[in-house]
Amino acid sequence: MKLGAFLYPTGYHIAAWRHPQVAADLGVNFRACVEFAKTAERGKFDFLFLADSAAMRGEDLPALSRGAHRYVAQFEPLTLISALAATTERIGLVCSVTTTYNEPYHVARKLASLDHISAGRAGWNLVTSQNEYEALNFGLEAHPEHASRYRRATEFLEVVRGLWDSWEDDAFPRDKQSGIYFDPRKLHLLNHQGEFFKVRGPLNVPRAPQGHPVVMQAGASDAGKELAAASSDIVFTAQNHLAGAQAFYADVKQRAQRYGRNEGELKILAGVFPFIGRTPQEARDKLEQLQELIDPVVSLSLLAGQLGEVDLSRAPLDGPVPELPGTNASQSRQRLLLETARREGLTLRQLAAKVAGGRGHWQLVGTASQVADELEAWYRGGAADGFNVMSPALPAGLHDVVELLIPELRRRGLFRQDYEGSTLREHLGLRRPLHRVPQSQPAAKISAAG
Amino acid sequence: MKLGAFLYPTGYHIAAWRHPQVAADLGVNFRACVEFAKTAERGKFDFLFLADSAAMRGEDLPALSRGAHRYVAQFEPLTLISALAATTERIGLVCSVTTTYNEPYHVARKLASLDHISAGRAGWNLVTSQNEYEALNFGLEAHPEHASRYRRATEFLEVVRGLWDSWEDDAFPRDKQSGIYFDPRKLHLLNHQGEFFKVRGPLNVPRAPQGHPVVMQAGASDAGKELAAASSDIVFTAQNHLAGAQAFYADVKQRAQRYGRNEGELKILAGVFPFIGRTPQEARDKLEQLQELIDPVVSLSLLAGQLGEVDLSRAPLDGPVPELPGTNASQSRQRLLLETARREGLTLRQLAAKVAGGRGHWQLVGTASQVADELEAWYRGGAADGFNVMSPALPAGLHDVVELLIPELRRRGLFRQDYEGSTLREHLGLRRPLHRVPQSQPAAKISAAG
Repeated sequence: MKLGAFLYPTGYHIAAWRHPQVAADLGVNFRACVEFAKTAERGKFDFLFLADSAAMRGEDLPALSRGAHRYVAQFEPLTLISALAATTERIGLVCSVTTTYNEPYHVARKLASLDHISAGRAGWNLVTSQNEYEALNFGLEAHPEHASRYRRATEFLEVVRGLWDSWEDDAFPRDKQSGIYFDPRKLHLLNHQGEFFKVRGPLNVPRAPQGHPVVMQAGASDAGKELAAASSDIVFTAQNHLAGAQAFYADVKQRAQRYGRNEGELKILAGVFPFIGRTPQEARDKLEQLQELIDPVVSLSLLAGQLGEVDLSRAPLDGPVPELPGTNASQSRQRLLLETARREGLTLRQLAAKVAGGRGHWQLVGTASQVADELEAWYRGGAADGFNVMSPALPAGLHDVVELLIPELRRRGLFRQDYEGSTLREHLGLRRPLHRVPQSQPAAKISAAG
Repeated sequence: MKLGAFLYPTGYHIAAWRHPQVAADLGVNFRACVEFAKTAERGKFDFLFLADSAAMRGEDLPALSRGAHRYVAQFEPLTLISALAATTERIGLVCSVTTTYNEPYHVARKLASLDHISAGRAGWNLVTSQNEYEALNFGLEAHPEHASRYRRATEFLEVVRGLWDSWEDDAFPRDKQSGIYFDPRKLHLLNHQGEFFKVRGPLNVPRAPQGHPVVMQAGASDAGKELAAASSDIVFTAQNHLAGAQAFYADVKQRAQRYGRNEGELKILAGVFPFIGRTPQEARDKLEQLQELIDPVVSLSLLAGQLGEVDLSRAPLDGPVPELPGTNASQSRQRLLLETARREGLTLRQLAAKVAGGRGHWQLVGTASQVADELEAWYRGGAADGFNVMSPALPAGLHDVVELLIPELRRRGLFRQDYEGSTLREHLGLRRPLHRVPQSQPAAKISAAG
């Protein structure tokens, strides 16, 4: 079973920052991030993971100003993960970088550089930007449409992989006697020209320790699944019931087979949002404590968005969920939420809190044994190769995983006792990609291509 | 006197990588870079400095493949410097990032993030790309012309500084009781719209510990000097004689005054390329040992470029420098080099080696006392506020500075015994910039600007 540790500022629960034991400034508290990384490494996690947004997400100031979760103020992930590379030894380091507002040369270069700095532990979560607020920081009036973003992402990855093969593995003899620093026959220009990019190369970083840094992808759309199946090493997916997870897993693995890849070459990790206690009651108390800290201004803003931007400001918070006007956007989502409220007898405040807490991720509440039962059922049942663990509140939530859950997974033979190798690919059981440019086609003369 | 430590892979001398005591892979050897940083910090340098190019520079493969100096294969500086932030405590961390092929939002964000990670030690050497090879990696056919690059750089810096003031210093109460994470009245949207950029903001990083990370600039053109005078904290300049350095110093300081700035707000650091021995002979031997390692394929390629891309391939290496055809590009430079060769009786090989070794930077060869005499004369003579030290070969060249030169500078009262403060601004004696947006003009409603 493969495990990622999701470093979300203060924890994934919407109200984590208000918890008495949480450092509310975790998003810009480097010492706390180092502690997180060291704890995850002590647990032998495959990698730690950072999401990203190149903009504050949203424009509802009253709600934004009461939360730590909308990418309001936190470290930029590539700088943070590079710094964490220097404070850890074994754990993989994966972060999101958008293909929508970047240049492939910069991204290929930074990730290759990080792979050298970390001795083979770098990973890239390839994302296409999902929110219009990023567009406004990069000169655009509106967010590019979905199909165009995915065509760009696909070409972007092609360019990045090509640049990562600029040099063969043994291109740098650095022979002091003969004076040969590199072997020109082992240098390959990319000369890419496509719909979005024109890139000559070479990348000015030697081939990475992992050959290519690990590539993760999280798109759930058809285009996203195709990109993942064709060329990713990890898929990160949000699923919250077994049957749906199994269907997604089978779908993506079959797509990968159509690209000539075998099952093991693509790891599918599901997000999990776990509350772990020494007793079932302790776990429920941990959830309840955080739920009670949810500010209704924040949760109602999220709920209103999910219901189709309806106005909830005049409905009594502690009364039943009101009937709502139909909207174009989200009839089925609206009906589902209203049915849940009626069935469980939830007030408006309670429904909003239920939606806000983990924003729809797979929530588990129980002892280590109970949580392990669920993870094992998914793992053995063809629903996931592992999990990206979204601890509700930090650092306590991660400590619960490392001290309670992981020992239980080890007792069941599901998780490693220690790292088997030194690179992230080795942790994940992924082969190191061969250099793709045949030795028979070296870049003869740069000037011919310049 | 302010001192920077230039971390050039293997050292600044063109043949450093071939020196028996140099790690030829320094450009991608993280342990060696950490050692460099720790040595510079032990010497109480103000900062360490990394140059950059987002492309391998050149297309003469026989010469390129015999050198480590053309940005062929080394760490990307932002990832490296972020990792070094985690392995050092006090030294400033400055690297080059080009304004020509980047987006200001990304650059502002990474530098602000690095400033938080390093607790106020980040600096940015703002450059405009100088070589056409970068253009080819970013979709362009040719390099943009000089004036356009400087207009872009000027606007880029304006946007970056604006984004760094997205939040007032006390914008984040993170008050768990009231639930107020940030104070919306202390959030300021940039809403920049100019010739090159349209950026809404806010930056999604809190205001940096230094207010603004330190900005360095190295342009020697009129446009470069204006940009430096208007808005930089440090100017890095290549000068190799006192009178020229004094003229440059006076010129830039006067320009700064015209922008309403006082002398001390802008530090001018000259590059120095020092060979330091316990005796004059030992210093000369250090220079000679490196000069003898110069490969004529490399040095002739550089010399041919300086002479206007003339063909030197048929001239005898150990004969006199031949008469050359006139070229359009560099008559005065050609005449200067030929006069030097005639006056000093240099062969073609010797002239090439003389040009190649330090590529025209201010070369000093002597004991610590002799080198200190020169630096003191410049420092006291109004030629420089300090120096960016380009050690010829690493790590030995830096050790010579820390163990021989810096103690001598301290004896003369020219350099600190220990760090006076904790941030790079404090090291340099630069004030922390006040937040520029008046408190009376908060961003009222984001939606109004969205």
